[in-house]
Amino acid sequence: MTLLSERSRYAVNPIQEDDAVAERLRAQGREVIKLNRGDPAVYFPTPRHVVDAYIEALKDDRTWYSSGQGIPELREAVARRYKRMYNIDFGGENVMISNGVSEAVQFLNAMFIDRGDRAVLFRPYYTIYMPDLKMCDGEAILERYDESREWQINVESLRKSVSEAESRKGKVKYMLITNPNNPTGTVLSRKVLEEIVEVAKDHDILLISDEIYDEIVYNEAKFTSISELAKGMPHIILNGASKDFDATGFRIGFVIIPESDRVSQELLKKSVEFGMMRLSANTPAQYAVAAGLNGVSEHSKAVRAMTKEIESRVNFVERFVNNTEYMRAIKPMGAYYIFPRLEMSRLKFKSDKEFVLKLLVEEGVQLTRGSGFGEPDHIRIVALPPKEVLEKAMDKINNFCERHKR
Amino acid sequence: MTLLSERSRYAVNPIQEDDAVAERLRAQGREVIKLNRGDPAVYFPTPRHVVDAYIEALKDDRTWYSSGQGIPELREAVARRYKRMYNIDFGGENVMISNGVSEAVQFLNAMFIDRGDRAVLFRPYYTIYMPDLKMCDGEAILERYDESREWQINVESLRKSVSEAESRKGKVKYMLITNPNNPTGTVLSRKVLEEIVEVAKDHDILLISDEIYDEIVYNEAKFTSISELAKGMPHIILNGASKDFDATGFRIGFVIIPESDRVSQELLKKSVEFGMMRLSANTPAQYAVAAGLNGVSEHSKAVRAMTKEIESRVNFVERFVNNTEYMRAIKPMGAYYIFPRLEMSRLKFKSDKEFVLKLLVEEGVQLTRGSGFGEPDHIRIVALPPKEVLEKAMDKINNFCERHKR
Repeated sequence: MTLLSERSRYAVNPIQEDDAVAERLRAQGREVIKLNRGDPAVYFPTPRHVVDAYIEALKDDRTWYSSGQGIPELREAVARRYKRMYNIDFGGENVMISNGVSEAVQFLNAMFIDRGDRAVLFRPYYTIYMPDLKMCDGEAILERYDESREWQINVESLRKSVSEAESRKGKVKYMLITNPNNPTGTVLSRKVLEEIVEVAKDHDILLISDEIYDEIVYNEAKFTSISELAKGMPHIILNGASKDFDATGFRIGFVIIPESDRVSQELLKKSVEFGMMRLSANTPAQYAVAAGLNGVSEHSKAVRAMTKEIESRVNFVERFVNNTEYMRAIKPMGAYYIFPRLEMSRLKFKSDKEFVLKLLVEEGVQLTRGSGFGEPDHIRIVALPPKEVLEKAMDKINNFCERHKR
Repeated sequence: MTLLSERSRYAVNPIQEDDAVAERLRAQGREVIKLNRGDPAVYFPTPRHVVDAYIEALKDDRTWYSSGQGIPELREAVARRYKRMYNIDFGGENVMISNGVSEAVQFLNAMFIDRGDRAVLFRPYYTIYMPDLKMCDGEAILERYDESREWQINVESLRKSVSEAESRKGKVKYMLITNPNNPTGTVLSRKVLEEIVEVAKDHDILLISDEIYDEIVYNEAKFTSISELAKGMPHIILNGASKDFDATGFRIGFVIIPESDRVSQELLKKSVEFGMMRLSANTPAQYAVAAGLNGVSEHSKAVRAMTKEIESRVNFVERFVNNTEYMRAIKPMGAYYIFPRLEMSRLKFKSDKEFVLKLLVEEGVQLTRGSGFGEPDHIRIVALPPKEVLEKAMDKINNFCERHKR
C-alpha cells in the first residue's frame, strides 16, 4: 500500500523526467546537450535594466511579503503594457501576480474544476495542462491543433465536440489555448481566433489564453492577443516575465482578467484569494519585472535582438529536421521549439519515449517526447543554444537515426 | 450559477481578509497599524550577507530556472544546518525547495489526500492548513492545543481520536504539528513530542512538523525538532528562509524527508515531481538562502539579535494583554504572536470576527480573528513593530474595549 493519493499519480512533468539520467551521465564525465527545457536565460542574459532594478529593490530592503495579489507597481505596469501593445483598457486591479504561469494553471484548475467537470484542451498541449486538470478530478475534451493545417485549430471539429459535450453530464468550465504555441511554435491566425471566440461565446465557455510567448514571434507571423477579440465577454490572459523578459528564474507570472462584468469580478476576487493562500510572490523580483515593463525602449531593443537570434536558431534546426528522412516539422512562427513528427516507419523504435531516452543515453542529447504533450511519435527540440551547439546536437541526432534506421 | 468550483470556496486566508478594508481606510488618509501579518522583514532588515549573496547571484546572471527540486548548493546547506543544529544526518537529495511553506502544504495535501482521506490537525491551526486539506476533498480529525495546558497537546485525547478514526472508513494520511506554534507561540515540550511520535508510530501515521520558527525561541524555552525524535520512521520537516532568515519576500521553503526507507524514498520522489510541475523556485533567492545558511556566525548573530528584540516586544504585548480585564493570554515562548482569549462576557460583540473588523474600522488597528485559526473568541496580535507602535496600538485596543464593554 502507498501513502500517496490517486491524484498525485498525475504529478509528472515529461520535460524533466529524464533529468536524473542526464545527471548520472554528467557524473560519469559524459557531455549532455540539454535541448529539453525552454530556458532563454541560460543563453541570453536577462536585460540589464531588469537586473539593476532587482538589485535596487534588494539594496532598498524590499524583502518583505507583498500582498497576495502582488505589488501595485507591477500590476499597473502590466495594465499599461496591454494598453500600449493591444489597446486594451484595464487597471492594475485586474491583474494577479502568480509564481509563473505554471502556478496560475494550478490555481485556475482548483478555481474551476470539481470532480467530473470538463475543460477543452488542444493537443499537443503544454505538458502540465492535462495533469493539473486531472489532479482536480477534471476531464479533458481533447481537441487538436491540426498538423495537416500547419497546427492551426480545426474550428468545425471544436464546435462539434463542444456541442456534443453540452448534451452530456458535467459542466464545460473553460477552454485553454496557447498562443504562440508550445510545443509547435504556431501563431494562431486572427481568423481562427475570431472563430474560437465565437465558439466560446455561443457555448458560454470561459476562454483562457496562455500568451507567455507573445513577443517572441518571427518568420513574418502576426500575433493577435485574445484580449483584442474577446471584448465584452469574461476571459483570462496568462502571461509573465519568463519568456518575453528572459527571466525564467524570477517566477513571475500574470493572471489578467480584463473585463469588469459580474463573472469577471467574481473570478478576480477568487484569484486574489488564491494568491493570499500562498501569501506572496517573490517581492524584489516583482519590482524588477515592473522596471522591465516600464523600460519600454530598453525592453523593445532587448526582446527584438533576442527574437532575431532565436529566429535564426529555430530556422537552422527546422532546416536540418526537414532535410533528414527521419522527421518532418511545420515551420515555427514563435516561441523557440521545433516539434517534428518522427517517421516511425523508417526508425527501429517502438515509441517517441524510447527514441528520446536512447538518444540521451547513446548521444548525450536530451529532448522531450511528444507523448508528454499528448502527441505521440513527435519530439520537441529546444532551439535556444548557439548554432555550434545546435549543429553538434543535430549531427548526433542524425548519427543516431542512421544507426537505428529500419 | 457560478463558474467557480465547490473546492474554491475554501480558498480564503483570514489573515489577509480585511486588507481591502485597510486599504480603503488608508486611501481616506487614515492611519492603519497592521498587526495581522507575521512579516519580520518589514521591521528587521534581511541580514547583509544574505542580501549580498542575492545581489551576487543576479550580477552573475543566475536568473535561469533551477531544477524542480532546487539548486544542490541550497539543499546541501539545509542538510548541513540539520547536522549542525540537531545532529541529524541526511543529504541534499533529501530536500525539496518550495515557494515557501505555504506551497509545500498545498503540495503535501495533493500528494496524500483523495476524497474522504483524513488528516490530524490541531486547533488553533495555521490558517491555510484546513482550507488546503479541504480543497483536496480531505477531512480533518481536529485535535487541540489545549489552552488549559498552556497550549500543549493533550496526547491522551489525541490517542483516543486516532483509535476511533481507525475504526471508521477512510485512511488517516498524516498528522501535522506546528512547533513553535503559530498563532499561540507555544514551544511543544520534549515529553509531548515524544508521545506524539509514539502515537504516529503506533498508528502508522505520517508525521509532518512545520518548524519554520525553530530559531525564534525565547523566555527560556527549549525547542526540540521532531527529526531528533522520529529517527527510523518516515516523517517530513517543513522549514524555510522566511522567519529564521528574515526573508519572507524571497518565498523559499524547505521540504525535508530525512529518512531513506522505502516510504520516505517514494515521498521524496513524488515531492520532487511536484516541484517539476511548477518548474522552479526563484533561482537567485535560492543562492541567497544558501549563503544565509552557510554564513553560520553572521546568521547566528543576526537571529539572536532579532529574537532578543522580538522577545522584548512579545513580552510587552503579553503584559498589556494580561493587565486588561478584556482578554487573557498564555505567555508565548516562540514566534511573534500573542493569541489572547477575548473575555466575551465583558464585551458587546457577537464574535471575534466582529471585534476584529470593528477595531480596524474604528481604531485603525488590524488583527486576525481567532476563528480563522479554528479557535473562536480569540484574536492574534503580531508583536513585531517597535514598542512605540505597539504601545499606541495597545492604547487603541484598550479604548476600543472600554467603549464596547458590557
